[in-house]
Amino acid sequence: MSKRPLILVTNDDGINAPGIRSLIQVMNEIGDVVVVAPDSAQSGMGHAITINSTLHLDKISNDSEKQQEYSCTGTPADCVKLAINEILERRPDLCVSGINHGSNSSINVIYSGTMSAAIEAGIEGIPAIGFSLLDYNYNADFEAAKYFAKKITKTVLKNSLPKDVVLNVNIPKLSKKDIKGIKVCRQARANWQEEFDKRKTPQGRDYYWLTGKFVNLDKGQDTDEWALNNGFVSVVPIQFDLTAHHSIQYLNTLNLDD
Amino acid sequence: MSKRPLILVTNDDGINAPGIRSLIQVMNEIGDVVVVAPDSAQSGMGHAITINSTLHLDKISNDSEKQQEYSCTGTPADCVKLAINEILERRPDLCVSGINHGSNSSINVIYSGTMSAAIEAGIEGIPAIGFSLLDYNYNADFEAAKYFAKKITKTVLKNSLPKDVVLNVNIPKLSKKDIKGIKVCRQARANWQEEFDKRKTPQGRDYYWLTGKFVNLDKGQDTDEWALNNGFVSVVPIQFDLTAHHSIQYLNTLNLDD
Repeated sequence: MSKRPLILVTNDDGINAPGIRSLIQVMNEIGDVVVVAPDSAQSGMGHAITINSTLHLDKISNDSEKQQEYSCTGTPADCVKLAINEILERRPDLCVSGINHGSNSSINVIYSGTMSAAIEAGIEGIPAIGFSLLDYNYNADFEAAKYFAKKITKTVLKNSLPKDVVLNVNIPKLSKKDIKGIKVCRQARANWQEEFDKRKTPQGRDYYWLTGKFVNLDKGQDTDEWALNNGFVSVVPIQFDLTAHHSIQYLNTLNLDD
Repeated sequence: MSKRPLILVTNDDGINAPGIRSLIQVMNEIGDVVVVAPDSAQSGMGHAITINSTLHLDKISNDSEKQQEYSCTGTPADCVKLAINEILERRPDLCVSGINHGSNSSINVIYSGTMSAAIEAGIEGIPAIGFSLLDYNYNADFEAAKYFAKKITKTVLKNSLPKDVVLNVNIPKLSKKDIKGIKVCRQARANWQEEFDKRKTPQGRDYYWLTGKFVNLDKGQDTDEWALNNGFVSVVPIQFDLTAHHSIQYLNTLNLDD
């Protein structure tokens, strides 16, 4: 690439989260960076978009930094749509989302605002990567994650990605020297066993907090869960064609039309 | 099935929407019905879950009806989690979501609260179907949709569904006699060309409304868009393994680890 690539950076933990600040540092070393990110945390937002409400964008002054930044009242998917349609003067060469504070491996991809931003970019035909670190701590150490984010981003910019595929990258909570490498994986079959914490308001009304225990149902050694549990960075190619193509033939035997 | 099936009904347009009232009528003819649905419209919520806030459930009195009903302050996915973990005394035999006021065909499945409820049930191992009518009108005619919802539900209860597959059913805005039949389809490749409507608040601050134009990029005659445009009900099998398995081999040629 002769000129510097244009890189859109977003996330779901909000524009001030340490994870996105780390990702911006990395991307400034690679290209020209524009940040459009939620003004507050959006975890668990899935692929939500804002239809029944208005959206605000605020340009942030950040004199000491190279990147342009905008804070948005919407969801991660809204940020990508606004960036492409209202802010960027040309199509970005890449969209990166994260670095998320916490895992987006296996079934978590479904609930992930981080990945919804990457998927939204993918739908628009823009190469996209979501990065997540397996550490929920606000003050997590992002050094290893930054190293691998840079490495993977450079490879993707050099080679591009298959059509309609975005990457879900998860980084284990280990120091760089203890990480064994990068593995391309499939999404593990897992789910959450919910345990609702039922409480009473001071007025005596019941309410619930959603909590739960993550259960990996998948013993395969080609999954993201296996890779992460064994000290590897996991890279799962993600698609937004949700068709279960393998089941079409069976469904046609049911004669739904009879 | 010797005893009547237990059917969980939910939606994303809210518990009072005509679409879910139509679906409840149909399901009461087939099984024992428990309704757990959002207390207000949740369109565009994608697969959002409520992590950073509390959830309330209210039992609704509905003396004239057979079903039990609960209204929930959360998202469609929250409703399914609460129903399974806190309300139902046994696992439901089926979860149905809808009937949505408006299409959830092709890429809309990604943004759909209706389908997120069905997918959430699928992750829990419960057969699930989302129904949507291609009519946004609050006072839409649900008669044809009810007919096809009943037909498809009975077939699914009789035959079950492949493991980890849920159905996305869309019904064209036509009278029953003008609908040509039911087609099993794949999800069309489509997207939205956003057109943000930029306005100023009375105080002079910019804000945006998200609007857009749906663009079908897919000329295939095996897609849901083709079926719907040609007078058929579309049935797309949906999976929540988002892995782009076909691209793993290519990604391994990139030597991400070097």
